[in-house]
Amino acid sequence: MSTKYNVAVVGATGLVGQEVISILEKRKFPIKKVSFFASTKSSGKTLLFNGEKIEVQELNEASFKNTDFAFFCVSSDISKRFAKMAIDEKCTVIDSSSAFRQEKGVPLVIPEINGEALKEHSGIIASPNCSTSILLMPIHLIHKKYKIKRIIASTYQAASGGGIELMERLLKESEEFLKTGKSANNPYAFNLFLHNSPMQQNGYNEEEHKMLVETRKILEDDSIQVTANCVRVPILRAHSIYANIELEKPFIINDLKNLIEQTDGVKLMEDFKNNRFPTPFDATSKDEVFCGRVRMDASSNNIFEIWIVGDQLLKGAALNAIQIAEKLII
Amino acid sequence: MSTKYNVAVVGATGLVGQEVISILEKRKFPIKKVSFFASTKSSGKTLLFNGEKIEVQELNEASFKNTDFAFFCVSSDISKRFAKMAIDEKCTVIDSSSAFRQEKGVPLVIPEINGEALKEHSGIIASPNCSTSILLMPIHLIHKKYKIKRIIASTYQAASGGGIELMERLLKESEEFLKTGKSANNPYAFNLFLHNSPMQQNGYNEEEHKMLVETRKILEDDSIQVTANCVRVPILRAHSIYANIELEKPFIINDLKNLIEQTDGVKLMEDFKNNRFPTPFDATSKDEVFCGRVRMDASSNNIFEIWIVGDQLLKGAALNAIQIAEKLII
Repeated sequence: MSTKYNVAVVGATGLVGQEVISILEKRKFPIKKVSFFASTKSSGKTLLFNGEKIEVQELNEASFKNTDFAFFCVSSDISKRFAKMAIDEKCTVIDSSSAFRQEKGVPLVIPEINGEALKEHSGIIASPNCSTSILLMPIHLIHKKYKIKRIIASTYQAASGGGIELMERLLKESEEFLKTGKSANNPYAFNLFLHNSPMQQNGYNEEEHKMLVETRKILEDDSIQVTANCVRVPILRAHSIYANIELEKPFIINDLKNLIEQTDGVKLMEDFKNNRFPTPFDATSKDEVFCGRVRMDASSNNIFEIWIVGDQLLKGAALNAIQIAEKLII
Repeated sequence: MSTKYNVAVVGATGLVGQEVISILEKRKFPIKKVSFFASTKSSGKTLLFNGEKIEVQELNEASFKNTDFAFFCVSSDISKRFAKMAIDEKCTVIDSSSAFRQEKGVPLVIPEINGEALKEHSGIIASPNCSTSILLMPIHLIHKKYKIKRIIASTYQAASGGGIELMERLLKESEEFLKTGKSANNPYAFNLFLHNSPMQQNGYNEEEHKMLVETRKILEDDSIQVTANCVRVPILRAHSIYANIELEKPFIINDLKNLIEQTDGVKLMEDFKNNRFPTPFDATSKDEVFCGRVRMDASSNNIFEIWIVGDQLLKGAALNAIQIAEKLII
C-alpha cells in the first residue's frame, strides 16, 4: 500500500485555498486526513472534500500536530507567524506567500524548472509569485540553451491576485457603472492602475521587485537583469505578460519555438494568419501556461519577444504548490 | 475683422468626428460655415453646432466646393478616395487616418512637437496614430536634449480606438456576463487581446509598425528604434503606455522630470508615497497627456521608464487635428 499523508490547508476559504482543495481532490493527492484552517471569521464553516463535510478550524499553535504537509495560502504575516510552529511539529510547509522566498535554505520552486532544489530544505518550501511563475514557465529551457541576459516585462494582471475582495469590487463597480454610468472616485471597473504593492526607494513596487529576485533564485543566475512594469487590469483571473528578452547567444526564432513546444506545462498557441493569440479567457481554469507571438525584436539584436498568459490561481499559485508536494513524495 | 473659414467634418457621426465638432465649438474655431459629411447610412441626420441644426450630407465629389479646411475622421480607404478631391478644390485636408502619414510631402504633425513641419505641405496634413501621439507627447523634449536611441512600448489600449461598435460591444458583453455569468466565445468583456490590426511578415501588426515609422517621422530621426506590443484592454477610452526608453547621453532622472514639466500639453502626476499614478479615468475627456512613475531602469544603463496615459479621442485624434488647423491659421 502506498503512503498516505495528513494534509492541512491554511487559508482554506480564500481564493488560493479553495483551488488547493479542489486540486487535491482532482489530482487524487494521497491523503489520509485533511484539515482546513482559516481565521476566526471563517472558522466553524464547513467545506466539502471528496463529498465529506469538513469543519474549518481556527488556526492556532496546536493546528499542525501529526500533519505531514501544510499548504499555506495566506498573507506573509500569517505565514511568518505560523510556519515555524508547523515545522516544529515536523510538518512540511509549502508556502504561497512571499514570507520565506528569499530566505537562505528555503527552496523557491517551480517543479518543472528547478524541482531538484527540493532535495535540500529545512521544512519550508516557497512557491513563487504568480507573475514570476507565469513568466518563467515558457522561457526556462530557452535560458538553459541561450542564457537570458535581461528581461523587460509588462504585466496585465487580473483581480484574483488581490483576493476575492478585489474580484467582488470589480464586479460590483462594473454593475454600478453599467446601471448608472457613474463611477466611484478612482475606480477599478473599466479602468486600470499600476500595481499597488508598497513602493521601494528605487521607484519599483514590491511586485516588480519580486519578479527580479525570484527570477534570479529560480533560474539560479544572479546575473539576469529584470525590469518589470506591473499593471492591474479589469479582468477576473489569469495574468498576461509581454516580455522582451535579451539572450547572450544568437538564435533563430524557430529554435526558441521548438524549445517552448518541448516544455512541460506550456502550450504554444499562435495563429499569425488569423491574429489569434492567447487571452486570459483561454487560460482561465487551465493548468497550462499559454504563450504565443514569439517573434524577433526588430529593434535590436539577440532579443526575442513573447506573449504569455496563465491562470494566476493555478500555475500562478495553487497548482504549483500541489506540484511541489507531489514532487516531494515521489 | 479676423478671417473666418468654411469647415467640413468628414465622418461627422463617428467617435472622432463627434469630438472634432465639440472641440470646434469649445475652442471657438473661427468658422464662417460648417458642413457635416458621413456615409449614406447617416446622411439626413441632423447635428447641433453652436445651437444650430445642421443636416449631415452624404459625401460626394462636390462636397468640398468653397471649403477651406476638411477634417477627415474616417477610415484610410475613405480618406484615400476623397482627400484628393478636396485638394482639387483648394481645401486643406487634415486627415486622422493612416492613409497619407508616410507619404512624402505630407507633414505628420503633433503641433507641440513638430509644428514647423506645417510650413510646407501640398494640401494634406496627417495627424498621427493615437498611441504614437500619446507616447511622444511627454518625451519629445527629452529626445531633443538626450537623443532617444530605442523605445520598448507596451500599450493598454481602450475600446474607443476601435470605434463606437467596439465600445458598444464591450458594454453589451459586460452586461451579459454580469447577468448570466456567461461569455461569448473569445469575448472582449473582462478579457484582453493583442491588437488585431493586420499582421506583417515580421510578426508585428500594423498598429505596432505605425509606432515605429510615425515616431521616426515626427521626431525626424530615422535612427530611433521602436518595438511595441499593442494590447486592447476592456476600457472605454484613454490609452495607457508603459515605455522603456534608452537615451544616447547619460542623464539624471530629475532633469527628465523637469523637462516633462516644461512640456506643453503634458501633466506629470506622480505620488510615490501613496502609489498614485495616472489611470485611464484620470485622462478621459482631458486635453493633456498624463504621465508618472518616471524612474531609472534598474536593469541597465542610460534607460528610463515612464507610464503615460492620454485620451485616445482627444490628443490621440480630434484635439490634435484641430490644433493642426489652429496652427495653420495663425
